[in-house]
Amino acid sequence: MRILFLNGPNLNLLGLREPDLYGNSTLVEIEKQVSLKAKELDVDVEFRQSNSEGELITWIQEARNNFNGLVINAGAYTHTSIGIRDAITAVKIPTVEIHLSNIHSREQFRHNSMIAPVCIGQIIGFGGYSYVLGLIAIYNVIVNKSV
Amino acid sequence: MRILFLNGPNLNLLGLREPDLYGNSTLVEIEKQVSLKAKELDVDVEFRQSNSEGELITWIQEARNNFNGLVINAGAYTHTSIGIRDAITAVKIPTVEIHLSNIHSREQFRHNSMIAPVCIGQIIGFGGYSYVLGLIAIYNVIVNKSV
Amino acid sequence: MRILFLNGPNLNLLGLREPDLYGNSTLVEIEKQVSLKAKELDVDVEFRQSNSEGELITWIQEARNNFNGLVINAGAYTHTSIGIRDAITAVKIPTVEIHLSNIHSREQFRHNSMIAPVCIGQIIGFGGYSYVLGLIAIYNVIVNKSV
Amino acid sequence: MRILFLNGPNLNLLGLREPDLYGNSTLVEIEKQVSLKAKELDVDVEFRQSNSEGELITWIQEARNNFNGLVINAGAYTHTSIGIRDAITAVKIPTVEIHLSNIHSREQFRHNSMIAPVCIGQIIGFGGYSYVLGLIAIYNVIVNKSV
Amino acid sequence: MRILFLNGPNLNLLGLREPDLYGNSTLVEIEKQVSLKAKELDVDVEFRQSNSEGELITWIQEARNNFNGLVINAGAYTHTSIGIRDAITAVKIPTVEIHLSNIHSREQFRHNSMIAPVCIGQIIGFGGYSYVLGLIAIYNVIVNKSV
Amino acid sequence: MRILFLNGPNLNLLGLREPDLYGNSTLVEIEKQVSLKAKELDVDVEFRQSNSEGELITWIQEARNNFNGLVINAGAYTHTSIGIRDAITAVKIPTVEIHLSNIHSREQFRHNSMIAPVCIGQIIGFGGYSYVLGLIAIYNVIVNKSV
Amino acid sequence: MRILFLNGPNLNLLGLREPDLYGNSTLVEIEKQVSLKAKELDVDVEFRQSNSEGELITWIQEARNNFNGLVINAGAYTHTSIGIRDAITAVKIPTVEIHLSNIHSREQFRHNSMIAPVCIGQIIGFGGYSYVLGLIAIYNVIVNKSV
Amino acid sequence: MRILFLNGPNLNLLGLREPDLYGNSTLVEIEKQVSLKAKELDVDVEFRQSNSEGELITWIQEARNNFNGLVINAGAYTHTSIGIRDAITAVKIPTVEIHLSNIHSREQFRHNSMIAPVCIGQIIGFGGYSYVLGLIAIYNVIVNKSV
Amino acid sequence: MRILFLNGPNLNLLGLREPDLYGNSTLVEIEKQVSLKAKELDVDVEFRQSNSEGELITWIQEARNNFNGLVINAGAYTHTSIGIRDAITAVKIPTVEIHLSNIHSREQFRHNSMIAPVCIGQIIGFGGYSYVLGLIAIYNVIVNKSV
Amino acid sequence: MRILFLNGPNLNLLGLREPDLYGNSTLVEIEKQVSLKAKELDVDVEFRQSNSEGELITWIQEARNNFNGLVINAGAYTHTSIGIRDAITAVKIPTVEIHLSNIHSREQFRHNSMIAPVCIGQIIGFGGYSYVLGLIAIYNVIVNKSV
Amino acid sequence: MRILFLNGPNLNLLGLREPDLYGNSTLVEIEKQVSLKAKELDVDVEFRQSNSEGELITWIQEARNNFNGLVINAGAYTHTSIGIRDAITAVKIPTVEIHLSNIHSREQFRHNSMIAPVCIGQIIGFGGYSYVLGLIAIYNVIVNKSV
Amino acid sequence: MRILFLNGPNLNLLGLREPDLYGNSTLVEIEKQVSLKAKELDVDVEFRQSNSEGELITWIQEARNNFNGLVINAGAYTHTSIGIRDAITAVKIPTVEIHLSNIHSREQFRHNSMIAPVCIGQIIGFGGYSYVLGLIAIYNVIVNKSV
Repeated sequence: MRILFLNGPNLNLLGLREPDLYGNSTLVEIEKQVSLKAKELDVDVEFRQSNSEGELITWIQEARNNFNGLVINAGAYTHTSIGIRDAITAVKIPTVEIHLSNIHSREQFRHNSMIAPVCIGQIIGFGGYSYVLGLIAIYNVIVNKSV
Repeated sequence: MRILFLNGPNLNLLGLREPDLYGNSTLVEIEKQVSLKAKELDVDVEFRQSNSEGELITWIQEARNNFNGLVINAGAYTHTSIGIRDAITAVKIPTVEIHLSNIHSREQFRHNSMIAPVCIGQIIGFGGYSYVLGLIAIYNVIVNKSV
Repeated sequence: MRILFLNGPNLNLLGLREPDLYGNSTLVEIEKQVSLKAKELDVDVEFRQSNSEGELITWIQEARNNFNGLVINAGAYTHTSIGIRDAITAVKIPTVEIHLSNIHSREQFRHNSMIAPVCIGQIIGFGGYSYVLGLIAIYNVIVNKSV
Repeated sequence: MRILFLNGPNLNLLGLREPDLYGNSTLVEIEKQVSLKAKELDVDVEFRQSNSEGELITWIQEARNNFNGLVINAGAYTHTSIGIRDAITAVKIPTVEIHLSNIHSREQFRHNSMIAPVCIGQIIGFGGYSYVLGLIAIYNVIVNKSV
Repeated sequence: MRILFLNGPNLNLLGLREPDLYGNSTLVEIEKQVSLKAKELDVDVEFRQSNSEGELITWIQEARNNFNGLVINAGAYTHTSIGIRDAITAVKIPTVEIHLSNIHSREQFRHNSMIAPVCIGQIIGFGGYSYVLGLIAIYNVIVNKSV
Repeated sequence: MRILFLNGPNLNLLGLREPDLYGNSTLVEIEKQVSLKAKELDVDVEFRQSNSEGELITWIQEARNNFNGLVINAGAYTHTSIGIRDAITAVKIPTVEIHLSNIHSREQFRHNSMIAPVCIGQIIGFGGYSYVLGLIAIYNVIVNKSV
Repeated sequence: MRILFLNGPNLNLLGLREPDLYGNSTLVEIEKQVSLKAKELDVDVEFRQSNSEGELITWIQEARNNFNGLVINAGAYTHTSIGIRDAITAVKIPTVEIHLSNIHSREQFRHNSMIAPVCIGQIIGFGGYSYVLGLIAIYNVIVNKSV
Repeated sequence: MRILFLNGPNLNLLGLREPDLYGNSTLVEIEKQVSLKAKELDVDVEFRQSNSEGELITWIQEARNNFNGLVINAGAYTHTSIGIRDAITAVKIPTVEIHLSNIHSREQFRHNSMIAPVCIGQIIGFGGYSYVLGLIAIYNVIVNKSV
Repeated sequence: MRILFLNGPNLNLLGLREPDLYGNSTLVEIEKQVSLKAKELDVDVEFRQSNSEGELITWIQEARNNFNGLVINAGAYTHTSIGIRDAITAVKIPTVEIHLSNIHSREQFRHNSMIAPVCIGQIIGFGGYSYVLGLIAIYNVIVNKSV
Repeated sequence: MRILFLNGPNLNLLGLREPDLYGNSTLVEIEKQVSLKAKELDVDVEFRQSNSEGELITWIQEARNNFNGLVINAGAYTHTSIGIRDAITAVKIPTVEIHLSNIHSREQFRHNSMIAPVCIGQIIGFGGYSYVLGLIAIYNVIVNKSV
Repeated sequence: MRILFLNGPNLNLLGLREPDLYGNSTLVEIEKQVSLKAKELDVDVEFRQSNSEGELITWIQEARNNFNGLVINAGAYTHTSIGIRDAITAVKIPTVEIHLSNIHSREQFRHNSMIAPVCIGQIIGFGGYSYVLGLIAIYNVIVNKSV
Repeated sequence: MRILFLNGPNLNLLGLREPDLYGNSTLVEIEKQVSLKAKELDVDVEFRQSNSEGELITWIQEARNNFNGLVINAGAYTHTSIGIRDAITAVKIPTVEIHLSNIHSREQFRHNSMIAPVCIGQIIGFGGYSYVLGLIAIYNVIVNKSV
């Protein structure tokens, strides 16, 4: 089983950027935490990050042939990108949306997610641990072939 | 560690009600699934369900002295209850919001959650497995004493 | 054939409360009027009233096994209760929504009904006679097994 | 007692048009069903249909001197016609609004009725039987000279 | 100088319809009052009334070759008719909008006029005398060839 | 009969300010035009202008004892001043609202008038001649003691 | 003179819950403070609290025969309960709405009160002293039999 | 193959009306241009125009038995007519919506089309040539029996 | 202790203006009623009224050095004045907002108060007695140096 | 004559992605269909696709010197991209907007096009044939040098 | 060259009022800072402040004959005053809008400026230095006679 | 001191694109004008332009270690990019937002800036000179280490 973790704009700054909001872990440290769990579940995981909406769309398209599931933290594009939404709909591989912070206790414009309606589920607010929960969730979806 | 699982209106009908949307498991079956995981984590869990907003509020208030964490699927009250929100804020024990279905791919009036902004995080869309993920998440929050 | 008539908050005050708006008949008098028609149609009817949203939800759930149809005047909960809506959807027995007054000629917040979309039909504005029409309507729906 | 039944645009296509939504009965068949009930109540009924908003307004105006009550299914004009609303207000004969389908479970733009606030009551969602209920309702209003 | 007075739906009921709101004068009586003023100004006036939006549009179109100015009380169509607006724009003869009642102290949906932006001016609230003022106004516009 | 003409902010610049929109006449020239008509009707008129909302309110209050009618072009305060509206309501002398330009063919924020609902009528769009029409209208209202 | 003080959901937690916002006094301490004033005015007061909307409605209904006035802090139900509003309207005893905190300097969803329009007046923002002011106000209303 | 071209209100004024916006061609000239293309495609075309919403609805209804496709420029009714929309839905013959001007670069109220959602496609902004493109498009739809 | 009572536009007309809404007392009579209570509490009070927003702002600014508290009925400016709000924020002396009528049972545009969020509390709906309650409330705030 | 066809995000998946909505043709097959028509019209066409908003903007900018016309299906960026709109405005070559599906019968957020107001016209809903119609339309615009 | 600096309500309290938000400089100190720069540019500057909207309007009107440019910080009136906007439009001297604080990071009701659309430009967020930048900007506009 | 000037989409077309709106200067000419001022202030400036949102985000991230301040004209992305906003927040170097044109006198969708709330200040409407003012402003911010 192969799972792709996609990270949107500014997530490369994790650990440096507003630690009160996003915690002190860098994306690399979160990736390590996820990898431990992945090994336990016997799953291959791959982490990518891009500031470009177009590149994220392309990666989702390519995942069609190479991954069994997708865990995505689309960052700022979460709230505006119809293109990412369309790509998820098009590739038809199960996708879980995650966020580090609780987007509902932040600014109004972060409350809406353009991609949530086309994902299987959404996990938000648990900091870096949202990624681990995302892995467990997508694993369960794929293994049970149902939600 | 003691965790209270609260279920709002109509969740007692699970398994009977719209299986396409909510799956075939009854609340009792979900409770069993959660209990297995709880045993594994050495956590006590208690399940309650009520159709009454007032009773849910009272249970949250009482949880203050008896539980370390709260996992809540407030059902229909999710979208309207300021009282449940106030109770969660008042008792100050960590709370995770869960839903069986992906509320963002349903009717417009289910997209907003009045309680999400006062919870630590939210897990939605994984059917009965949302409860298991809720347990893992709240456990992680309490053990690490941070998010 | 057994039909349950459910009455929401403050309908126990009928006849006492704002007679210009709701007429002079008490709920008991309306029940008598309905019973006459019911006898004529050879139908059993039962009247219940509650100020509690949770109790109304519970009664709808219980109707599943004991009644062939539901006629509901949810009173103030008409305009806000997703829980009553969900209960009607869940039990899947034919339901007719009724109101004494014409809700569209009153305050803006009474124009919308949360439960109308999940009922078969709606009859409003005929005072106590709305209950009789509700009985005739639900009878016709059940007898013809179609709408 | 003379009752006028007015039908708005496209209702002449009943039976042909979207039977899932509107049923298989033609307007003529519904008229027959209504006539049986009318005979039982010793009431004269007349059915008219027009695609023209202006003609419907004129018919409502003329009803002032020739009919005791009005039952109207204004079809598409229900949601936009201030002119029909004004005509009903002007003629001051009791009017009941009816619809075949449950307008609240259809598109958003069909939820609002411009004429509901000036009618005595509204009956919706019972297919062709809405017309029979409309007759019973208007009969009761006129006989009791009150609502 | 020839001036056309156009009257929309239900204005044929003037004097009969809601005298508190519209006064006791019939359209014929108003026409007489206007004719007196017209004679004084040496102007030909013609009064027409229709319940049909299409007929009003056609009359506006025909006015292009036969009249120097237009005074219009579009009644209920005032608030919704883009077609009447387009006709006024197309014929390019000076047009004054009038109303018997003060539309701004009535229901919200009567506050907006679709045709006001394409008329020279608007006179509202003076009962039948609005028509006389409309005549004086359009006369002044045409004589001075400017506003 | 004594009529007060009140002019709001910036109307002292008439003739200088945006002549395309407001014409070339100054307020003094309009006053002369009105005075001619006033003499013809045997009416005393008084013109005042202020840039201060408070001063306009005070003048309306004082008009209670000294004038039979009020014609007001409140300028920019038309769209925001609840205070001027309250003053007109309080003094209870008949008031006509006028505007030089057609406010409905200008910016959105000029379409709404806070004072229109408490005036007898409104005359807009006829340039300086709106003042003359305002005089004729208020004269007619007072003489006929009715609208 | 008998006055009923009703308290809505979560007000039983006063003193424990968010003292920055609601102060350190418990409901019992506030009751004592009110009782002192009541004795001074020779008034009987009774305090009740419930988390249940239905129970609050029932208490308001019962007050009809047993109390001369009502002082209500409906807590979270303030902003959503049409049922409490309808009960106050139905019982027709003078009612004063109070709040501990200034609801207008809190979240947007707390700015609106569904019950304010049917109360005589509203007193908000004075902490526990809002209750004392509520008593003085309702006393004055009843004694002077007017507002 | 027979195609009906329907034209809504004011389109009879084409060529005369606002040539900057709608071009200099009359409806007759456009019809000629369309006929040339129709001959080339071996298609019969018929042009009709009406200012009456009801007549347009009736023509659409009648097209059911006499035409293979419909090309409609509903003019002003485009933005408000639910009746035309319902007629198109009812007759179930393929329909293409066209406009001379680009409705999206005009006033806000022209941006929305009530009929677009029930048409196969929409062609706007090419002046009289929109009609030719409409013919080519509907021809292609019918010949390929799919879109 | 010195308390300033500020009154906004049209409050000088009290007793004359709409007595159904505002009562029969003049501002002078209310001042007398307040003075009695002030004497009892050993407080100096001063009453001022202005129709000018600017003058009210200036008085609030000057209160900074001369008064311990402010009770303000800003009248029509309540709903629009950011300047009065800013002045209250700037001077930092405790302020209580009062109104004679219940603003929530009047027109929509009177429901919102621009100044409420920066006041300690709000007392509305008790006629002239709102002023007395305002005095008692501000006295309590200052004496207890807390809310 | 040289025409550039630009395709936005996810259009490279055509034929694979949701065939019910977008048909079975790949972008390459559509290009072939367009090329046939182009040859017939003696026009050079070039097809490009990108998932990147920035790249699409750059291509539009470069078209200024190399192409006579632009046909654009901006896909998901249609509804949000002010940058593409600005580029079209800046380069000033005639542009036609096309879509495969009828965007008005899909989700609300697809109904608005940010670029439509700066294009000459829009053709939507004809599947791959929208591209052919787009070519015919832009050809006609360029040849006739007018719309 | 003569430049008028206008300051709206409460700006006379600068330095005293909320220093976190507005800085510690008084208006006099800012005026000194501006004067230094003015001397450097050989420009005459004059500073005025008023709490009265009417007085600000009058000063703008008078500036027409006495100043070459206007720099305005309209304070609270920025967000509501159509009168100030109209005055700026009428006098036609170049105007620059300035603010001490960044109005876009404050309350929602401060985000909109009624006067921005009629000014040449806007400079906000630089504390007292916004005034210096305003001077440099207006100087550049006047010297280059273009923007 | 090193300052980075970032330019968003289509700004590379300056001088070519809509000169009425944006002036005749190219970006290179503006850069020269800025460089003169920079030399005068002894500041290093660097100009970059990109049509890609992702590249702009990356440049802002990189600025963290290499620049003391940022001046940004985000062009079309100003109104939609949460990603650019997040990047500015994350890097925490002082940022000034600039625009050539006055965005408040253009289309509605250009009035809002997603990035303004996280910038120190905003300078708009002075054409190319906005860049020079931006430099002066950011220089002042950095030198005085305060706003």
